[in-house]
Amino acid sequence: MKTVSVFIGSRAHYSSIKSVLAAIKQHPELNLHIVAGSSAILDKYGRVVDLIRSDGFYVNNEVNMLIEGGCPSNMARTVALGIIQLSTIYDSISPDIVLVVGDRYEIMAPVLCASYMNIVLAHTMGGEVSGTIDESIRHAVTKFAHLHFPASPDACQRILRLGENPQHVFAFGCPRIDLVKEIIHSKTRFTSDSLFGYGVGSHLNLQDPFLLVSQHPVTTECEQALEQMNATLEATFRTGLQVIVLWPNSDAGSDYVSKSIRNFRETQDTGKYHFFKNLSIEIYVSLMHQTSCLIGNSSSGIREGAFIGTPVVNVGSRQSNRQAGENVLTVDHDPEAIYSAINTQLQHGRYPSNPLYGDGTAGLQIANALANISIPTPQKLINY
Amino acid sequence: MKTVSVFIGSRAHYSSIKSVLAAIKQHPELNLHIVAGSSAILDKYGRVVDLIRSDGFYVNNEVNMLIEGGCPSNMARTVALGIIQLSTIYDSISPDIVLVVGDRYEIMAPVLCASYMNIVLAHTMGGEVSGTIDESIRHAVTKFAHLHFPASPDACQRILRLGENPQHVFAFGCPRIDLVKEIIHSKTRFTSDSLFGYGVGSHLNLQDPFLLVSQHPVTTECEQALEQMNATLEATFRTGLQVIVLWPNSDAGSDYVSKSIRNFRETQDTGKYHFFKNLSIEIYVSLMHQTSCLIGNSSSGIREGAFIGTPVVNVGSRQSNRQAGENVLTVDHDPEAIYSAINTQLQHGRYPSNPLYGDGTAGLQIANALANISIPTPQKLINY
Amino acid sequence: MKTVSVFIGSRAHYSSIKSVLAAIKQHPELNLHIVAGSSAILDKYGRVVDLIRSDGFYVNNEVNMLIEGGCPSNMARTVALGIIQLSTIYDSISPDIVLVVGDRYEIMAPVLCASYMNIVLAHTMGGEVSGTIDESIRHAVTKFAHLHFPASPDACQRILRLGENPQHVFAFGCPRIDLVKEIIHSKTRFTSDSLFGYGVGSHLNLQDPFLLVSQHPVTTECEQALEQMNATLEATFRTGLQVIVLWPNSDAGSDYVSKSIRNFRETQDTGKYHFFKNLSIEIYVSLMHQTSCLIGNSSSGIREGAFIGTPVVNVGSRQSNRQAGENVLTVDHDPEAIYSAINTQLQHGRYPSNPLYGDGTAGLQIANALANISIPTPQKLINY
Amino acid sequence: MKTVSVFIGSRAHYSSIKSVLAAIKQHPELNLHIVAGSSAILDKYGRVVDLIRSDGFYVNNEVNMLIEGGCPSNMARTVALGIIQLSTIYDSISPDIVLVVGDRYEIMAPVLCASYMNIVLAHTMGGEVSGTIDESIRHAVTKFAHLHFPASPDACQRILRLGENPQHVFAFGCPRIDLVKEIIHSKTRFTSDSLFGYGVGSHLNLQDPFLLVSQHPVTTECEQALEQMNATLEATFRTGLQVIVLWPNSDAGSDYVSKSIRNFRETQDTGKYHFFKNLSIEIYVSLMHQTSCLIGNSSSGIREGAFIGTPVVNVGSRQSNRQAGENVLTVDHDPEAIYSAINTQLQHGRYPSNPLYGDGTAGLQIANALANISIPTPQKLINY
Repeated sequence: MKTVSVFIGSRAHYSSIKSVLAAIKQHPELNLHIVAGSSAILDKYGRVVDLIRSDGFYVNNEVNMLIEGGCPSNMARTVALGIIQLSTIYDSISPDIVLVVGDRYEIMAPVLCASYMNIVLAHTMGGEVSGTIDESIRHAVTKFAHLHFPASPDACQRILRLGENPQHVFAFGCPRIDLVKEIIHSKTRFTSDSLFGYGVGSHLNLQDPFLLVSQHPVTTECEQALEQMNATLEATFRTGLQVIVLWPNSDAGSDYVSKSIRNFRETQDTGKYHFFKNLSIEIYVSLMHQTSCLIGNSSSGIREGAFIGTPVVNVGSRQSNRQAGENVLTVDHDPEAIYSAINTQLQHGRYPSNPLYGDGTAGLQIANALANISIPTPQKLINY
Repeated sequence: MKTVSVFIGSRAHYSSIKSVLAAIKQHPELNLHIVAGSSAILDKYGRVVDLIRSDGFYVNNEVNMLIEGGCPSNMARTVALGIIQLSTIYDSISPDIVLVVGDRYEIMAPVLCASYMNIVLAHTMGGEVSGTIDESIRHAVTKFAHLHFPASPDACQRILRLGENPQHVFAFGCPRIDLVKEIIHSKTRFTSDSLFGYGVGSHLNLQDPFLLVSQHPVTTECEQALEQMNATLEATFRTGLQVIVLWPNSDAGSDYVSKSIRNFRETQDTGKYHFFKNLSIEIYVSLMHQTSCLIGNSSSGIREGAFIGTPVVNVGSRQSNRQAGENVLTVDHDPEAIYSAINTQLQHGRYPSNPLYGDGTAGLQIANALANISIPTPQKLINY
Repeated sequence: MKTVSVFIGSRAHYSSIKSVLAAIKQHPELNLHIVAGSSAILDKYGRVVDLIRSDGFYVNNEVNMLIEGGCPSNMARTVALGIIQLSTIYDSISPDIVLVVGDRYEIMAPVLCASYMNIVLAHTMGGEVSGTIDESIRHAVTKFAHLHFPASPDACQRILRLGENPQHVFAFGCPRIDLVKEIIHSKTRFTSDSLFGYGVGSHLNLQDPFLLVSQHPVTTECEQALEQMNATLEATFRTGLQVIVLWPNSDAGSDYVSKSIRNFRETQDTGKYHFFKNLSIEIYVSLMHQTSCLIGNSSSGIREGAFIGTPVVNVGSRQSNRQAGENVLTVDHDPEAIYSAINTQLQHGRYPSNPLYGDGTAGLQIANALANISIPTPQKLINY
Repeated sequence: MKTVSVFIGSRAHYSSIKSVLAAIKQHPELNLHIVAGSSAILDKYGRVVDLIRSDGFYVNNEVNMLIEGGCPSNMARTVALGIIQLSTIYDSISPDIVLVVGDRYEIMAPVLCASYMNIVLAHTMGGEVSGTIDESIRHAVTKFAHLHFPASPDACQRILRLGENPQHVFAFGCPRIDLVKEIIHSKTRFTSDSLFGYGVGSHLNLQDPFLLVSQHPVTTECEQALEQMNATLEATFRTGLQVIVLWPNSDAGSDYVSKSIRNFRETQDTGKYHFFKNLSIEIYVSLMHQTSCLIGNSSSGIREGAFIGTPVVNVGSRQSNRQAGENVLTVDHDPEAIYSAINTQLQHGRYPSNPLYGDGTAGLQIANALANISIPTPQKLINY
């Protein structure tokens, strides 16, 4: 019986690992321990921890670690606060495996604790290339991790080139695709009424064409974040279509993106806009399934978009170098270029599904690997 | 004018970077900022910070970050304490470059601060392979660092294989060799009287053959550390020769090594032994120059030993995979095997000098590179 | 020459200590050191640190310590983050005196650092009785402090009853009154145009009667904070008068008060309302000088209100037991009771000035005391 | 059913609260939760946490919080580290009451967490006067605490004079006396053989007269600590009697006291000395019962000494102002004065028992009070 402690630090973490949680919970040889921290427990970011609980998972600990104020040094302090709390939690429960997701800055807290405490570290979504500070974090986590579950074949190759042991690298695809598949195949659809009952803005008609905007700050370009979001909003406004806008995540620069949205709402006629602080993965995927075009720099356009076939306009550098399917057009932070790319996608329409990021069985395969792989001394073996 | 903030966390850090500090201090376009932390400011580890000051350097800040108690989770907490203090220091002085040395666990504090705060991170001694937790840390630091100064050609190749930009990787050799060269070439020699005036134990005669022991805990084998040190001490005792023993560093397991030494002193006739808590690099190198054989698991046997030609018996896994010259024999933690290897080295005697880890100009070359290389946005570029 | 390090953690701290800062800065035997932290450096709370700088003071360090999320345990974590950063700052500059203001939870950070580091601790605004968690903090700070500068005669008596040395307790009045006096006596008045150019809401006419609302969460009643603010807003709405509303401070529960304001703006016709995130002390005092009635639970109604003669409706428990002049009516969180008290104050009009909280020379007197009093060993002497 | 979380930070804490732990554990309406932290979990200070467990208590969490290096700022950092860990633990278990002991600097961590998190805070050993930094801490804790259990009548009076609610102050005596009584009345006596099997030094004969030394650093006199301990050791040496010496606690300055002991051992003939790192309360009390004279500055001489009737020479300022019985002689840190006072006590011999610090039922009475007293809102009421 192994205890697997999973760290969930954001709404994106949860949807990226949910099918793994379910598979661990049902596995007879695994014991699931969940720590929710960072933005996952904050009202401001929609408290995804409540959703986790209502989905039937037990959340063992909540870890308050985000510092107020979007300056870069606070990202470092957040890691420090997380380390101090997590080390005490891990001392108390002695997990066999710590499982972390992706590349957000706060995961260095569980990563360092696990490494320094001689606990096996498992990592999903490693080996990708995106071209931001997340880049360094993702590959550094790979160098600390003992078990790797990359989401795509090229990410798998990159992890091997980083010198990791091939016996501990498994390309089972992205667990988010497990959920996407389930949602797409499910018959239940939310109604416009239930959807627009929350969020802020007008009640849209989803039978008519609509755009979807999801744009986050780039941490190395914090100060341009306001202007960058302005460009995206302006381009969508010129289409005259209905638009759904999501608020940004909590990375440094987040306040600038939010300010752009607020300015936009106060200076433009936003009669065809609706703004959401957070959406369930079910609703978000359904919107990706229905939208005429997704605009912004969320990784979802590239990953889930490939499987769903969503037309995507990817803006700026945040996803540069992430392997994308033919459904993605990438442009600069220029209103004209964004507007033109949206039109191209509107004319093309939906793309065929592409299994680039998995076939919907990643969660089960990862849980089995966690149960079956034995790493007697959690010490990194270097194969060259 | 660039400000370079150097983090020094131990006595070993200092001797590994001293010639770089001197070259930065004298460089007209560089401004030197020094933070001393971790064991470098503790009486228990010989307060190398006082030596730094008496060598003529200004130490801007002292950072207390070591936690009492040798359990692994405290290494994580130490990083956290360091992050919180360093982030405030860096916020206050806005360095252009943060320079870190090697792979000890506490350097993740300056590393994460620099990375998250968009400060250029420079790293010496990356790319090596030693086979401990340090392994993960060293390569993770490489993935965060923007400028790399590996100590040997094979370390350089390994950094390039990790995907770093070749234009930012410089194999100038190890700065410790700069000091070693200077000490070996200097005419001044300490006297036995001055040497044995401190430390604890007998007054030895350095004209006669003597052994030198420097053994640290292996952090993934904490609990065997006592037994491992017992084996080494027993082997040296059987030779009947004079022996100089150094106390261990502050890694997890350190208390076990210390306990072994104390037990040994209380149960054996240690009339031919002398014990030092810390030695200046000058004295240590001179002892390496004179000793019949260095025994233990210090990296100095491999690095400085190559240049000096010291016969070395390297014990256990701590230096496994570190590129070594022909002066090093590696054996297990078995008293018989250690004893036998010591005898082989005693019969062989001194080896010829080997430039594997540098020719004595690394410090100057590194300072010049720090002054000349420009990295406009400190964002990691990935070359594949 | 003594170095006095002043900790400023909020906009209220600054206006409560500004005249002391000016007097320290000009004193030939004092050296002023300023640390701004907590909400004083956050955009969200108006970054009073920028105002401090534009007022001509040098701010030596900024300390990020507020944690995102309004749960009570984060107040404790904020103190911890503050301690770790302040201890390093104080280690670096070795202040002779640390000066703190009032009773907000974060001041326990400079208080514990000073006490444990054997630095003389001076405290303004001690000895008062308000009846919240601040109560415990204020009196605990008194037990740590070596020099006391209470704002009123009854506060002075209370400090003496707590056993403090009478030679170290000085009732010079509240330094805020120094500013209030200066502002009231100055001829310059802001125009409505300049005032309503920022903040959110309608452009009011200050020649006509208007109400002023300043209500903060009570930390032991976090969950009622939304309902409490609703009651106040409802009562002001019924008067049909113009209303200026200030956003709450950052205490636990703050998000509830903010939510009440946002709900109010989205569900009511707020054509006669204007909302400010923060106001300079100059504008705030002028508004107190002009308003028909100040409503809420800010201490300003009681302190500055006494000197200015402002009619005040004090709501709920936050200021219970604070010595108030005849200008203050206190009522429960009941819309009817608040409405009725507002009407009583409207009929009465302005009150005569009352020197209960000082005569406008506190800053100078405090600076002189800091310069002249010598406490060789900063160890608390207990006089019974 | 109330959960009472007890913080134990040292060996002294444990013996001061053990009888309360036992009474809480057996109380049908109380649920016992134990956090061991600071020196209580360190090998260096004898890991009293292991004793707690072998005594049959379940220890829920261990909190690593002590920082290496005896400088004063580390005491502040220790509190910070404790706060961050304890706040997460309390968030997780939601205790109804937090119970803390005495006045050591690290208890500000549980104290601030409980206060800020609206948890009822209970405090034993408040209201005393000793004249060190502990003085400020003890009275500050009183201002935060809701329930007070002072150890002596004069301490009780002092708490009331500090303005605490008389209904929440209970003078049940010191729980240590419960243990002392039990030990004194028990028939089992340890043998010299079992006792001197551990510790370091000679095997003494306890049938013959022997002295007992227990001296800790005074935190405001850190730098004199070595010299102060030298004086005490010199005086004991001159008596020619057998001497048992205990190592100091972990307060700032501790390393100086330890150094004095080590110097003494290396320069003097310590054939009649034995040195212990820690002793069980059973053995310590038995030694106090048998010793000809206890020398040093431990509070045990005054408290337990009163009940037992031990002749005590109390040295220096650490216990100044603590109410003492007739068994205590107080002298300066002067070898001559200490020597002379020891002789006076040797001539006098044992004193009659004095119930000044309790009659041996404090534990039961405190547990009952914790179960029965209800404090609906843990907000401090101030009675003047």
